[in-house]
Amino acid sequence: MKKLINRPDDVLADSLVGYASAHPEVRVDHERRIVYRTEPKERGKVAVVSGGGTGHEPLHGGYVGRGMLDAAVAGEVFTSPTPDQVAAAIAGVDGGAGVLQIVKNYTGDVMNFDMAAELAAAETGVQVETVLVADDVAVEDSLFTAGRRGVGTTVLVEKIVGAAAEEGRDLASLAALGRRVSESGRSMGMALTSCTVPAAGKPTFELPDDEMEIGVGIHGEPGRHREKVGPASEIAKLLVEPVLDDLDFTGAPVIALLNGLGGTPLIELYLMYGEVAKLLEAAGVTVARRLVGNYITSLDMAGSSLTLLRADDELLSLWDAPVVTPGLRWGA
Amino acid sequence: MKKLINRPDDVLADSLVGYASAHPEVRVDHERRIVYRTEPKERGKVAVVSGGGTGHEPLHGGYVGRGMLDAAVAGEVFTSPTPDQVAAAIAGVDGGAGVLQIVKNYTGDVMNFDMAAELAAAETGVQVETVLVADDVAVEDSLFTAGRRGVGTTVLVEKIVGAAAEEGRDLASLAALGRRVSESGRSMGMALTSCTVPAAGKPTFELPDDEMEIGVGIHGEPGRHREKVGPASEIAKLLVEPVLDDLDFTGAPVIALLNGLGGTPLIELYLMYGEVAKLLEAAGVTVARRLVGNYITSLDMAGSSLTLLRADDELLSLWDAPVVTPGLRWGA
Repeated sequence: MKKLINRPDDVLADSLVGYASAHPEVRVDHERRIVYRTEPKERGKVAVVSGGGTGHEPLHGGYVGRGMLDAAVAGEVFTSPTPDQVAAAIAGVDGGAGVLQIVKNYTGDVMNFDMAAELAAAETGVQVETVLVADDVAVEDSLFTAGRRGVGTTVLVEKIVGAAAEEGRDLASLAALGRRVSESGRSMGMALTSCTVPAAGKPTFELPDDEMEIGVGIHGEPGRHREKVGPASEIAKLLVEPVLDDLDFTGAPVIALLNGLGGTPLIELYLMYGEVAKLLEAAGVTVARRLVGNYITSLDMAGSSLTLLRADDELLSLWDAPVVTPGLRWGA
Repeated sequence: MKKLINRPDDVLADSLVGYASAHPEVRVDHERRIVYRTEPKERGKVAVVSGGGTGHEPLHGGYVGRGMLDAAVAGEVFTSPTPDQVAAAIAGVDGGAGVLQIVKNYTGDVMNFDMAAELAAAETGVQVETVLVADDVAVEDSLFTAGRRGVGTTVLVEKIVGAAAEEGRDLASLAALGRRVSESGRSMGMALTSCTVPAAGKPTFELPDDEMEIGVGIHGEPGRHREKVGPASEIAKLLVEPVLDDLDFTGAPVIALLNGLGGTPLIELYLMYGEVAKLLEAAGVTVARRLVGNYITSLDMAGSSLTLLRADDELLSLWDAPVVTPGLRWGA
């Protein structure tokens, strides 16, 4: 295992130290592994919280800031944060208008965020609503999940709900909006290589030198099948077709995310996006906004995933709203 | 070789197609492989051009936009663009106030950009000034270079000179500013793995499973030496010390870039930055601005580089000025 780390057990703590040094505009609670916005709480603003296991950077800590998250809670690599951590984040951000938490659909996360909401409500009376993201069309159940896994749509939910929270919408409407966005997104991923979890010290799965895993999860969970690595034009079909088979993306403006899994450079992601864009156009899908880069990763895995969101004028306008975070930034 | 590409010979053309689809806010001349700003030329504004071999994304095409470059010219992977290409870009951006070109110090680039400047001047009378970046402290001469290689400082020169050009400064002052920035920056890199040039189909160099290359170039050129991979805290010393030995970075505000080489995920870059920041603080260096991520890459190489720029109030103010490009964006 070759990585820029110190002791494998210290990866989360050490990376948070670096993150805090790199971004003095956010505040890091190193004991509880929570990244907070530093701007003063706005009266009446619902706070938006997310989190999960580490290893998906810039998700979630990189999305803390104006127009997106108020706090992000980090578990160890590929491990849910504890209910206590999440409850501390909820208490830390609540300004009286309640807290919306955005949770990727993995059994551990769902359980711990639910317990955190109950804990926080019992202790301080804060109202908490949860939006679950379960957008991966690859498989129905998986290694750490009952139902579909939560992947790329999470980034889009965090952006759009974050913008709506900034407008002063109330908790119930934000929860409804978040669920609508979550249900309108679909993703499919593929890997050229495994990732290597630092504590394990070896690749999560073995993949022959000429094969790729189609439908891989962001923790290296198995996908649908393996096949020989083909040209990008063929790989693009293996991402686009299952997504389009699962939801009708015609007749509405679409937000597209062509995401890298951590070890794939931008030149390949752009090339893949070109192939994806051609297929979407041929299928009558109108891409209104697009994002190409490493936004929800799987440590050092080489590969990419496609996320499409069926949007409308309201969602586009919230997408375009200013966002000022380390990981996404525009309009301000 | 596992990559998200079609035919190795088409990597540049295909990735430009994808780049154009992903960023409709820039204009791509696919025949000449030039990325242009789309906003109308401002009268009296000096145009800023850069370019070089492909494989360093987001450099240079990703830095085209308001507050940075007016055009970027792309050669094949790790290959200089031709004089004709560069001359076309110069002619394409000149609004009457002249053109400043920013060139990384590699023999082929230097020769071709010089010839392009002469060609363009002869054809259209445009005034061209050149700023050379030669900031890599690792080695004096190298595989493709007489003198020092141009690496991370290039990003900082493009940002700072781009901001100054936006203010309406004239060609001579911009050239002087660019040279001052170039001379105030120093870089040092290291690799955990080689990169693989698509047309070669195999790693540029062999590196044993437990070794790293210290002082590597952005095309996989040899560095100073190899040694066993150590903890990030030790690797950070191998980057920080040669940089600080080469120029005094105390007594002035410093801009720090902790850069990934393409295959290294953000979690490791943040962790490395944490180690670098501790060393800089201990050495009495005041980091006033910092950038952590993949900004000048070497295809899929795993590793990182450190760039420090000795700044002052003027340079910080130009650094902070709005920039709206696919690769760097803030303040607008």
